[in-house]
Amino acid sequence: MAPPTRIGLAGLAVMGQNLALNIAEKGFPISVYNRTTSKVDETVERAKQEGNLPLYGFHDPESFVNSIQKPRVIIMLVKAGAPVDATIKTLSAYLEKGDCIIDGGNEWYENTERREKAMEEKGLLYLGMGVSGGEEGARNGPSMMPGGSFDAYKNIEDILTKVAAQVDSGPCVTYIGKGGSGNFVKMIHNGIEYGDMQLIAEAYDVLKSVGKLSNEELKEVFAEWNRGELLSFLIEITADIFGIKDDKGEGYLVDKVLDKTGMKGTGKWTVQQAAELSVAAPTIASSLDSRFLSGLKDERVEAAKVFKAGGVEDTLSDQVVDKKKLIDDVRQALYAAKICSYAQGMNLIRAKSVEKEWDLKLGELARIWKGGCIIRAMFLDRIKKAYDRNPNLSNLLIDPEFSKEMIERQSAWRRVVCLAIGAGISTPGMSSSLAYFDSYRRERLPANLVQAQRDYFGAHTYERIDIPGAFHTEWFKLAKSKI
Amino acid sequence: MAPPTRIGLAGLAVMGQNLALNIAEKGFPISVYNRTTSKVDETVERAKQEGNLPLYGFHDPESFVNSIQKPRVIIMLVKAGAPVDATIKTLSAYLEKGDCIIDGGNEWYENTERREKAMEEKGLLYLGMGVSGGEEGARNGPSMMPGGSFDAYKNIEDILTKVAAQVDSGPCVTYIGKGGSGNFVKMIHNGIEYGDMQLIAEAYDVLKSVGKLSNEELKEVFAEWNRGELLSFLIEITADIFGIKDDKGEGYLVDKVLDKTGMKGTGKWTVQQAAELSVAAPTIASSLDSRFLSGLKDERVEAAKVFKAGGVEDTLSDQVVDKKKLIDDVRQALYAAKICSYAQGMNLIRAKSVEKEWDLKLGELARIWKGGCIIRAMFLDRIKKAYDRNPNLSNLLIDPEFSKEMIERQSAWRRVVCLAIGAGISTPGMSSSLAYFDSYRRERLPANLVQAQRDYFGAHTYERIDIPGAFHTEWFKLAKSKI
Repeated sequence: MAPPTRIGLAGLAVMGQNLALNIAEKGFPISVYNRTTSKVDETVERAKQEGNLPLYGFHDPESFVNSIQKPRVIIMLVKAGAPVDATIKTLSAYLEKGDCIIDGGNEWYENTERREKAMEEKGLLYLGMGVSGGEEGARNGPSMMPGGSFDAYKNIEDILTKVAAQVDSGPCVTYIGKGGSGNFVKMIHNGIEYGDMQLIAEAYDVLKSVGKLSNEELKEVFAEWNRGELLSFLIEITADIFGIKDDKGEGYLVDKVLDKTGMKGTGKWTVQQAAELSVAAPTIASSLDSRFLSGLKDERVEAAKVFKAGGVEDTLSDQVVDKKKLIDDVRQALYAAKICSYAQGMNLIRAKSVEKEWDLKLGELARIWKGGCIIRAMFLDRIKKAYDRNPNLSNLLIDPEFSKEMIERQSAWRRVVCLAIGAGISTPGMSSSLAYFDSYRRERLPANLVQAQRDYFGAHTYERIDIPGAFHTEWFKLAKSKI
Repeated sequence: MAPPTRIGLAGLAVMGQNLALNIAEKGFPISVYNRTTSKVDETVERAKQEGNLPLYGFHDPESFVNSIQKPRVIIMLVKAGAPVDATIKTLSAYLEKGDCIIDGGNEWYENTERREKAMEEKGLLYLGMGVSGGEEGARNGPSMMPGGSFDAYKNIEDILTKVAAQVDSGPCVTYIGKGGSGNFVKMIHNGIEYGDMQLIAEAYDVLKSVGKLSNEELKEVFAEWNRGELLSFLIEITADIFGIKDDKGEGYLVDKVLDKTGMKGTGKWTVQQAAELSVAAPTIASSLDSRFLSGLKDERVEAAKVFKAGGVEDTLSDQVVDKKKLIDDVRQALYAAKICSYAQGMNLIRAKSVEKEWDLKLGELARIWKGGCIIRAMFLDRIKKAYDRNPNLSNLLIDPEFSKEMIERQSAWRRVVCLAIGAGISTPGMSSSLAYFDSYRRERLPANLVQAQRDYFGAHTYERIDIPGAFHTEWFKLAKSKI
């Protein structure tokens, strides 16, 4: 054994194991610890097998902490909530002033802020660091979003920049900002991920249900899309998925997967924060709703029966479509809706940054998402460039490049949504994105009527288009006096 | 002066004044109090003018409390949050065991539960009572949703049943349930109100922008609709609004009202609770988003310029439409979307009722909304009957009557949404409702792909349609091994 090591990692589930091995592989000796000690031995064994990596296992927290060079840095990868508090309690018993704990989980940002404060009172440093990329990313290069103590970040910047995914513009990590900003940004990343997955699922649905594409054809289409503007991890794995045969029966595995989607909480938080921040995020919200509705499988089966009996089939029409044209339209619809979704996510981050005075750099966030994480895509480079052109861009939609792309794609997008509606297929993500686009670019919305109603029944007052001030009208009296 | 009075009311802004006068008019002597004492005198003066009603004003909290017969009941109508806590503190200094405070404001339900507990420790009773109907309802008969102590409810049941709006099936008040259930139900009522207002605004938008209807024609259309299945307070006042001429210039007032909608918080809470409870509520969410987007007037003006320069007009097409057919289609679309919105609201209430063990009666809630409140409508009687037929109805959409109505209207609804999309007008409420309908009645959604993706990158596992259990596949390895 060769401690003191450079860094420690506590929590050796699959993400923790892989991140520890990644760090060791990059040449940083690492101590690891887990409450269930078999995980420690398992990780040590993997480190041996994967090339005698400098990774050292400990079965008790005290010797684990003492094995790390000072000031100590320990990354935690345990379940968000109470387990994080418990781990902090265990470790901090042995930590000394200037030491640092980093939470690498999907934690609610306010919990991180609470903990950072408590740690500070003990002279300890704290970071909340979103880590994206799944198992594979953790092992070979994730995208990391560390927020909190800047001093703590500086202590391990050399490690993080080597461990992160590397893209043309550098490593996929940067100091995000103060407080819980790292967790918040990761949360929005996940919300955007929900949106991307939903939009891809809708593209699949339209191509399969209306275009009658086979899985082989779908695989080809997504592989083709992955060579163009949609190039991204999620499009790539979607192409892969359509090619996998069922290992338990005939046909393709994707057709045997139950249409019920699980979720873990960050999508829910994103939608709740959107409401809190008064930012419209309908694409992300519709992806969450779609997961909720997917969960009601039994109710859906029942409802399908009720409506089929009344003449409304699952897919209403057998419209004859030009496959090639449909595929091209769906690609454009997917891309245009995706721009709306990212516009919403970025505006959520900006609104929070203003509220919390985090001073977040939107272009830099797009940059560190270019590699390593689940939403990695060529497209993110375009977003980075849009914010390079104008750091104060109020909405991605009006960036000169993106607005041009939207204009080129809007007709195809409208065709796809209407085709789906005619076929009785829901495209909640594509259609709510379209409504977002059409609302945002509309000089005059029918909100004047809503405000008039509010003044009518609740005396909430209204503004006028021509005279400044707040006005109230006795609508009821005027209406009734005319009779 | 003739105290002891039967009841007290503290907080004499417009709602409080009107509710106090209503109570006095129904023959219950009432004491009133307000921190700013001019409001007390104002209310006393109104009571005199409106027929020497038995209303007694007090300038200090002690004599106010002492003027009420024991066990005392005091309704508070003050701003939610800190002012409620302050008022409770002021009043409870003079209250005695068995006395009761009722919060009649739009309070967050958890605050009510916290206060009820604190009051209970002092031997005091507490109710959180949603009151809907605006000024006019408060004065002449609101819909009231009292939740909390059942004993406290029983103490004033005689007052509430007389003060409430009266409809064929009785007074628009009932004991809702324990804890904060009264506030929660009122919150959902408001969320539904948001949805109704948004859907009406979209109907207006399509008729005006695509159908080119004048305000006079719109007034006629809404007045006509108010004689049929859409009969409701909001449709009625909408017809009224279109008839009001501008008092500060040429034309109609509605056209001078700025298209920016304000909001007060209950809509936001509804959307956040929907996410919390895993219940899809896209119609209500889209109405909240529309308010957010309406607020970005300057950005919209800017965006409209950008896209007009690129050839995308505010309203894209000048489609020639058959006005009569359009009006009929829009009516059907509005009604069908409204059913979806109420289905979401009712399911939110049920989900919360299960979580909190409130045992709420959905049909009874629909009944007390039939009169007095902002969403009062003939339609609510249909909802009540649906729950009478089946108290365990999983979704209003599959009730035999409603499903029949949905089937009859769905073609018109699809036509309207596609027409709007073609015209470049957003109908976020109608289209998200349609997506909700089409998702809910779909036996097989594309959620299988999302779940496969989650298993691909995060090993989240999936279920199969044919074999029970949780499965994980090494998608990446299988995909790459094929190459």
